[in-house]
Amino acid sequence: MLSKLNPNVAAMKCLQCGQLYPLNDYFEGCPLCLQSGTPASVVPHFADFPTELHHGNFGEWMSYGCPSGLGEGNTPLSSLPRLAATLGIEALYAKNEFANPTGSHKDRMSAIVAQRALDIRAKTIAVASSGNAGVSMAAYAARAGIDCVVVTTPDMSQNWRRAIEMHGARIIAMESSDDRWVLIARHARRGDWYPATNYLMPPVGSNPFGVDGYRAIALELYLQFPAVPPTDILVPTARGDLLWGIAKGYQDLRNTGLISVTPRVHAVEPFPRIGRAREGHGMVCSNFSGDTAMVSIGGNTVTFQSLLALELTDASGVAVNDQEASHDRLLLAKEGLYVELSSAAAVSGLRKLVAQGKIGARSRVVMIATSHGYKEQSEPEFSGQLISTPLMHEG
Amino acid sequence: MLSKLNPNVAAMKCLQCGQLYPLNDYFEGCPLCLQSGTPASVVPHFADFPTELHHGNFGEWMSYGCPSGLGEGNTPLSSLPRLAATLGIEALYAKNEFANPTGSHKDRMSAIVAQRALDIRAKTIAVASSGNAGVSMAAYAARAGIDCVVVTTPDMSQNWRRAIEMHGARIIAMESSDDRWVLIARHARRGDWYPATNYLMPPVGSNPFGVDGYRAIALELYLQFPAVPPTDILVPTARGDLLWGIAKGYQDLRNTGLISVTPRVHAVEPFPRIGRAREGHGMVCSNFSGDTAMVSIGGNTVTFQSLLALELTDASGVAVNDQEASHDRLLLAKEGLYVELSSAAAVSGLRKLVAQGKIGARSRVVMIATSHGYKEQSEPEFSGQLISTPLMHEG
Ligand SMILES: [Zn+2]
Ligand SMILES: [Zn+2]
Repeated sequence: MLSKLNPNVAAMKCLQCGQLYPLNDYFEGCPLCLQSGTPASVVPHFADFPTELHHGNFGEWMSYGCPSGLGEGNTPLSSLPRLAATLGIEALYAKNEFANPTGSHKDRMSAIVAQRALDIRAKTIAVASSGNAGVSMAAYAARAGIDCVVVTTPDMSQNWRRAIEMHGARIIAMESSDDRWVLIARHARRGDWYPATNYLMPPVGSNPFGVDGYRAIALELYLQFPAVPPTDILVPTARGDLLWGIAKGYQDLRNTGLISVTPRVHAVEPFPRIGRAREGHGMVCSNFSGDTAMVSIGGNTVTFQSLLALELTDASGVAVNDQEASHDRLLLAKEGLYVELSSAAAVSGLRKLVAQGKIGARSRVVMIATSHGYKEQSEPEFSGQLISTPLMHEG
Repeated sequence: MLSKLNPNVAAMKCLQCGQLYPLNDYFEGCPLCLQSGTPASVVPHFADFPTELHHGNFGEWMSYGCPSGLGEGNTPLSSLPRLAATLGIEALYAKNEFANPTGSHKDRMSAIVAQRALDIRAKTIAVASSGNAGVSMAAYAARAGIDCVVVTTPDMSQNWRRAIEMHGARIIAMESSDDRWVLIARHARRGDWYPATNYLMPPVGSNPFGVDGYRAIALELYLQFPAVPPTDILVPTARGDLLWGIAKGYQDLRNTGLISVTPRVHAVEPFPRIGRAREGHGMVCSNFSGDTAMVSIGGNTVTFQSLLALELTDASGVAVNDQEASHDRLLLAKEGLYVELSSAAAVSGLRKLVAQGKIGARSRVVMIATSHGYKEQSEPEFSGQLISTPLMHEG
């Protein structure tokens, strides 16, 4: 596997204070902002981009542009015309991130983290995960020939665990979600582990090179909608890696002059964490437990990158509960898409933003279908045996 | 959803006796061959094909060329260079059919069966399935607004069942695999159900229009390997829909002059069913129970289309057991691919054909990765709770 940093990446840049830093891994974000008690991520800063974007030069837009060979990216769209009509908008598409090799958007991050880890000769990659990030990092680390530790909690679904174990990663179950970060912090600061995800509290975004990989979704959407681009994008969000990556991709396209208007990139979350942070209540929302059946977007923390993504694209944060997401997962299944609960939350969030008048009837919306529905634990009502039907008695 | 038959489809043609028939649904295959006691499928017969194949005219090569909008097809490749070296061949790729909307190759069949069902105004689609075909047909029937019945056995994994129920299909569990076919036969002959899969014993292939959808895999591989095409393709096989579809796609490419040599399209199966059928022991191999952990390719029957695919492409049938497939599933996971046991069988089959000298060191091989690993029931050893690690005690 090739692992060469794009020579156009000239420095790392703080999202919050704009400070430029030499090329390096800043797991704890901007040193200056951390010292001020307001942590924020840094991102790879490109000296310039090509003047065009097409399938032939896609890699030149990415920090590590060499594909892994596993087949991530270039995910297809599902058009959902009936659901668009039901919700009262012009068009709705799902960007099928579950078509990635391990079945979620996380492969875009993991593919680049593995390349970065090879590039700097890291021995062990560590990831804090409830499932998708863990299985994805385990797969790409295996491919890169690098050890992988997945730090999780005891309630991780056996569907995810089996896959992680098959990829050869080590699973460590900590008693609480916050303990995962403490463990990774200890090993990352010692230099034992190369962290793919955040370990600070309050948090920053995940590995800066990994998060940069999500920009590819914006670039692909640019190519997939050559005529009329989407007006709004709905992103299931915890600490905003995916949200920020998509928003940043569109910023890059605009700064290069390839588009003049960026879609609004909205955050959908299980609690109104972002709203409270925007009102100045801080990045840790202790009035929410963080527990939700939407395990891929749980937790009670917010990152600066999420707030910036919404601000830059003039977008909203919207909270939906498990029941709403469950209802909309069924609606999506009736259109042919079986997704995880956290993905279905995008439909619930869309419905609310339409009701609030924030997304209008002429809107053309893309929801990010982050993962398929097969990895979460099945509900108890599905665990019984099927009743067999004797042939003579069928109706 | 548009559902117009390609006007180039002029007739239906028997694979065995070559008889042409008027355009219609021949669920029981060729009437003449059925009467002779040697059932065989019919296939859509194209008057001619375009002189070129590219992404812009792909649909003109298919019997129902209008995409469903759900995003099936155009599946990516994973390159597996380490595994190729281990096995002693020049190159190995997986064609990632798990990237299809419901996570398996079956979506290629279901998308077209749903279009055909709309075209002839069928009310209810029926499918006999252990899992993948059921969830796939359920999804595409839901999208087409047509009722769907999935006829299965009581041991269907709850992961599949939950998805099928969410798509709104009705599940009927029959006591045995053969009973499924009896039930579907009864309703298909009454005209109540439009069958997506075989119900004859001895069997023919699945719905002729649906099977025709698998040709797309050959056409995509033609576009994905513009310079040096693969020499061999390994296909996990039960009754040979996928095997035949791929072989037929290559035949069409050769008959049109776009390629001069077709790859050999090999069948991998859990018992040497095809070998016994080739030796004249008939299409029902009563000396095999048909039971295997490779549920997607189980059963003890063979179809004429499988024998023809091997004959036309000068290919082999190779049998592998559950232990071999299990070993190779782990090998694939170490390369980053987590697939169902039936998919991993392709690696085991490849190893055997290399050992037998049937696939040589200069071979460039594609294995069809039919489905991801999340749908099968987890083994008991994965069902316990994870032990949680107190922070102070970690190593
Ligand atoms: Zn800063
Ligand atoms: Zn015939």
